[in-house]
Amino acid sequence: MHHPADRLLDRVRAVGSPTCVGLDPVLERIPEPCRAGAGSPVEGVERFCRGVIEAIAGRVPACKFQSACFERHGADGVALLDRLCALAMERELHVILDFKRGDIGISAAHYAASADGRCDWLTANPYLGVDGLEPFIRPTASGRRLGAFALVRTSNPGGDAIQSLRLEDGRTVAQSVADLVAEAGEACLGGSGYSALGAVVGATKAGDAVELRRRMPRQIFLVPGFGAQGGGIDDVLACFNPDGLGALVTASRSVIYAFEDGVGDWQAAVEAAATEFSRLLAAEVGAS
Amino acid sequence: MHHPADRLLDRVRAVGSPTCVGLDPVLERIPEPCRAGAGSPVEGVERFCRGVIEAIAGRVPACKFQSACFERHGADGVALLDRLCALAMERELHVILDFKRGDIGISAAHYAASADGRCDWLTANPYLGVDGLEPFIRPTASGRRLGAFALVRTSNPGGDAIQSLRLEDGRTVAQSVADLVAEAGEACLGGSGYSALGAVVGATKAGDAVELRRRMPRQIFLVPGFGAQGGGIDDVLACFNPDGLGALVTASRSVIYAFEDGVGDWQAAVEAAATEFSRLLAAEVGAS
Repeated sequence: MHHPADRLLDRVRAVGSPTCVGLDPVLERIPEPCRAGAGSPVEGVERFCRGVIEAIAGRVPACKFQSACFERHGADGVALLDRLCALAMERELHVILDFKRGDIGISAAHYAASADGRCDWLTANPYLGVDGLEPFIRPTASGRRLGAFALVRTSNPGGDAIQSLRLEDGRTVAQSVADLVAEAGEACLGGSGYSALGAVVGATKAGDAVELRRRMPRQIFLVPGFGAQGGGIDDVLACFNPDGLGALVTASRSVIYAFEDGVGDWQAAVEAAATEFSRLLAAEVGAS
Repeated sequence: MHHPADRLLDRVRAVGSPTCVGLDPVLERIPEPCRAGAGSPVEGVERFCRGVIEAIAGRVPACKFQSACFERHGADGVALLDRLCALAMERELHVILDFKRGDIGISAAHYAASADGRCDWLTANPYLGVDGLEPFIRPTASGRRLGAFALVRTSNPGGDAIQSLRLEDGRTVAQSVADLVAEAGEACLGGSGYSALGAVVGATKAGDAVELRRRMPRQIFLVPGFGAQGGGIDDVLACFNPDGLGALVTASRSVIYAFEDGVGDWQAAVEAAATEFSRLLAAEVGAS
């Protein structure tokens, strides 16, 4: 039963870059060759995502599926997501299911069961406390162990309204969630020293990241928002530990829609963007 | 384009009770006649849920589907949930999709699209702020309007660790979320004076409920936890406005598994439990 943090870090070392490509496919933006002759929206999305997975495999260690983009197509979209997760695993991409579920214990256990076999890690919402998180990091019915990234600090403008509120003890709400995650995560450390309970920390808040890194030394940070969402390289470097580990940086739209900027083969453009993203992070984290 | 709060309150008045039955089907607890000869777990769950819906129709104004119980069966479970939502609507049950989604704007919009046509209201997680809630209460692509119950105060033990934290301004985190919900909800009031943005308020915290009611006069409260989760009648009465409106009380396991306590026809036991639950609340709210 290989620990999810160890598996992920092994994969990061094998590829040589702490990067992840996010698949957030929106029908309106998929390239013409994927739409042409598709019998349904889901078929078009499938062609596109299969092409992206083949283009990024070996370039980055991990990919992240935004569940909402598939769920909007109903049961057919959920079935498609299953197929794509399986394909990504075959291509040795570590799979993160970004579904941000959060519920009380027994319902969280059902959500964990729904993720079993589909992914290596998932994302979870901490508003219901630790009993909404723990079911995700227990061994599953099939004996696997999943990792869970708890939302600690998000990169959207509205996140501040709750996450930045100041408590009477001086912490922000996000910092109190960080402390909760760090404590709960102690119970599930891998051989690498990192926990199966990680944290989502938006890349647009570098000042926040330094403080959150201090509070969560054993959490792997999933850092969305690089590129299209406005986070730059300096913002993400604050998310790493001094050992150059501990964070996985995600780019989504800037990679999967890279073909929109130019001419020629769309898949080659995606591959080039993934390669460039991977190299950039490898160089910067190595140099930091 | 009928407003979701007005539709819900019309239905509550028509049945004469502010009640909702939660469908959280767990394979291990469904009655033998539903399992016998079922070709798959999903088929057994379908027989059970169809039986429950027929038993509670006309007894209560609304039902709530716990999405996790269906998603754990993968795409087939999601397709089943669609069929059950359609059946419930046919039987004039107001449908609440309890999926507790929360994501940034565009992904929240995808989740809203996934709910369009399946339900009247849904549940949403507020940790990402108002931009994670607003997409749920905008008119959908098909021109319908959904209502959204934002998680403000949950009834699970672990919820306190975040929701009860005290801010430097004296409010708790849950109270600050309540203020956010009340403010955002002003933009979408119905003719009844109630908002399309409601609030989940756990029934096990009567003291909290009084204060939250004060902060959210125009929110309909979805009150889970009556019965099996430990909330009693006094706890839920605090959730209502003086007009006897403004809350919808949910019982799940105490109704749908009522047959476990006795002998005879399982569906008759569920119908009797739903009828009793509905009468109890009608009497108490009328008398409060």
